[in-house]
Amino acid sequence: MQTSPPSIRDWTVSRWFNTDHTGFSTHDLDGRVVLAAAFQMLCPACVEHTVPQLRKAAALFPAEQVAVVGLHTVFEHHDAMTSAALQAFLHEYRVHFPVAVDAPAIDGGAVPVTMARLSLQGTPTVMLYDRSGRLRRQTLGHLSDMQLGAEITRLGAEPAGPSLDPALAEPAAGPGCDDVGCRP
Amino acid sequence: MQTSPPSIRDWTVSRWFNTDHTGFSTHDLDGRVVLAAAFQMLCPACVEHTVPQLRKAAALFPAEQVAVVGLHTVFEHHDAMTSAALQAFLHEYRVHFPVAVDAPAIDGGAVPVTMARLSLQGTPTVMLYDRSGRLRRQTLGHLSDMQLGAEITRLGAEPAGPSLDPALAEPAAGPGCDDVGCRP
Amino acid sequence: MQTSPPSIRDWTVSRWFNTDHTGFSTHDLDGRVVLAAAFQMLCPACVEHTVPQLRKAAALFPAEQVAVVGLHTVFEHHDAMTSAALQAFLHEYRVHFPVAVDAPAIDGGAVPVTMARLSLQGTPTVMLYDRSGRLRRQTLGHLSDMQLGAEITRLGAEPAGPSLDPALAEPAAGPGCDDVGCRP
Amino acid sequence: MQTSPPSIRDWTVSRWFNTDHTGFSTHDLDGRVVLAAAFQMLCPACVEHTVPQLRKAAALFPAEQVAVVGLHTVFEHHDAMTSAALQAFLHEYRVHFPVAVDAPAIDGGAVPVTMARLSLQGTPTVMLYDRSGRLRRQTLGHLSDMQLGAEITRLGAEPAGPSLDPALAEPAAGPGCDDVGCRP
Repeated sequence: MQTSPPSIRDWTVSRWFNTDHTGFSTHDLDGRVVLAAAFQMLCPACVEHTVPQLRKAAALFPAEQVAVVGLHTVFEHHDAMTSAALQAFLHEYRVHFPVAVDAPAIDGGAVPVTMARLSLQGTPTVMLYDRSGRLRRQTLGHLSDMQLGAEITRLGAEPAGPSLDPALAEPAAGPGCDDVGCRP
Repeated sequence: MQTSPPSIRDWTVSRWFNTDHTGFSTHDLDGRVVLAAAFQMLCPACVEHTVPQLRKAAALFPAEQVAVVGLHTVFEHHDAMTSAALQAFLHEYRVHFPVAVDAPAIDGGAVPVTMARLSLQGTPTVMLYDRSGRLRRQTLGHLSDMQLGAEITRLGAEPAGPSLDPALAEPAAGPGCDDVGCRP
Repeated sequence: MQTSPPSIRDWTVSRWFNTDHTGFSTHDLDGRVVLAAAFQMLCPACVEHTVPQLRKAAALFPAEQVAVVGLHTVFEHHDAMTSAALQAFLHEYRVHFPVAVDAPAIDGGAVPVTMARLSLQGTPTVMLYDRSGRLRRQTLGHLSDMQLGAEITRLGAEPAGPSLDPALAEPAAGPGCDDVGCRP
Repeated sequence: MQTSPPSIRDWTVSRWFNTDHTGFSTHDLDGRVVLAAAFQMLCPACVEHTVPQLRKAAALFPAEQVAVVGLHTVFEHHDAMTSAALQAFLHEYRVHFPVAVDAPAIDGGAVPVTMARLSLQGTPTVMLYDRSGRLRRQTLGHLSDMQLGAEITRLGAEPAGPSLDPALAEPAAGPGCDDVGCRP
């Protein structure tokens, strides 16, 4: 728990993919709107909806204005969704935007560090950060392309600086995977 | 031809549907972004893509900020796409936003008045008007939902007043209907 | 009502489209499996599902073994779904298989003759006739492509002659159009 | 290479999933039509098209007439597509039909044993075996649902016994994954 809204810099990441320069850090995202999504490579709704949507956003918005970032939050099937498996997945699904691997829980628990800290309720979770790095949306499941295009543009039209009105987490449903996604 | 960019008030309309007050006029659109689309009820791409997209936009954006309007530009099969037929179509496809019937050509030609004046190249054509009523996009075919959501929002973030950078008509292709749409 | 199962020869048709030889009759269907569908050109489920499915079947099965036939059963919006309108529809949707126009009710009622005689409950209704011309399936709504492919093939493997086990009409739902189709 | 057409008993399998009785063998498939597909859990076309199609077939056709079987032929990303990963995949994608893991090449090569013996050119490959266990179709890529439903039914209408007309492998394309599938 924290008093200020969580920033993407609060992510605890064990590894980044698709960041070809060694010095990549979340500071590189400063001043840009960030569309992020927590996903798992074996979450059917993530594969069918979220990954294609992130690719569309990365293709549509100029990179200097909007950053698209994945967060691989493995909370089940840990032996199946390894870093090697994720790397193969990103290759086959032609994912070229940066993807962070959420750090495993220190106490050996199922839910990884960032997922727990952000109180994410499952995958996919769509997150929008404004140009000041503040979390403005965190929604379990899928947003329509039209709504996402509108919200990204709305955040981009704001001046960088303090912001308002976070629309945060949706209420939780039971564990398991359904049409919306997977929950721990 | 005209020197100032064409406005939605330049439309020459023989009849409006889904405008339940007699006094409806395009002045009612002042101050709002207007998403308009020229379509024909027997244009397959219009039925499959454009009409559902307009419905999605009408559901997503607040009506006081964004108006969604159809323009029925019949340039072929005039005896099939009558006003009575359009009325049945709008009922069955649950279209509740205003739809204008483009006025038939005075000289008996196939292309109706507004379609000719705006140099529309076929159906569907997506048109975006800014809050000052100026045409800012006119594109034959289909825009992705994400792009459309972004562009509507961008226009909504502009102050009402003089505007710039119209992205106007695409180059024409041959006559007939294909996956993009129908051209006269 | 009748004692023997209804045959496609029982259809009362005011006009055929896509039958280029004057002498076309339903006798030409003898010995073939017939996939038929009652539809309306302004029935959204018909346009989205049924017409494309009929086109797929016409492309997949050899014409000498399987005939694909439409039956335009207008029970609403009669002034919109005229023969001229249907002709334009068939052109724009690239329908090349024969389509019969169900004859209007003699007493001026809404439901046309064949639709009433077959007790069709709405559109779309998928009908399968065996090689002996007997109605073997009559189902309101949509069958999956896989099931339809299987059933057509099963009927084709039967010898022409007396047949069994008709799977006839589904129970009715209320009037109007929904995801299944339109009912009078 | 062999003189008689290859049978499903020729598969060399290191492990079966979704066969809950220890004594399961391919002999259990005798007398049934078998729809089989070679796939990889990280092949996008397999996940989008083939796995859902197999599930549809398993739901549509009676199990005593038609068996649906998967063959996991890993020829790339071997460290990602392990048995543990496949097990998680089958769970998340709700695959309940039997899935065989093709045995790894003895010489350490990339292409597994059965894939090499059947000269499969990539994933997905749809295979149809008749009621006598003979391979009758082996096609790289995707068949339409309607065609597959028709072909399964056609094979089911044949008496069990010697059969004809195998429609075997398609010509190869280059290595990598595309809309059709993945090739080694």
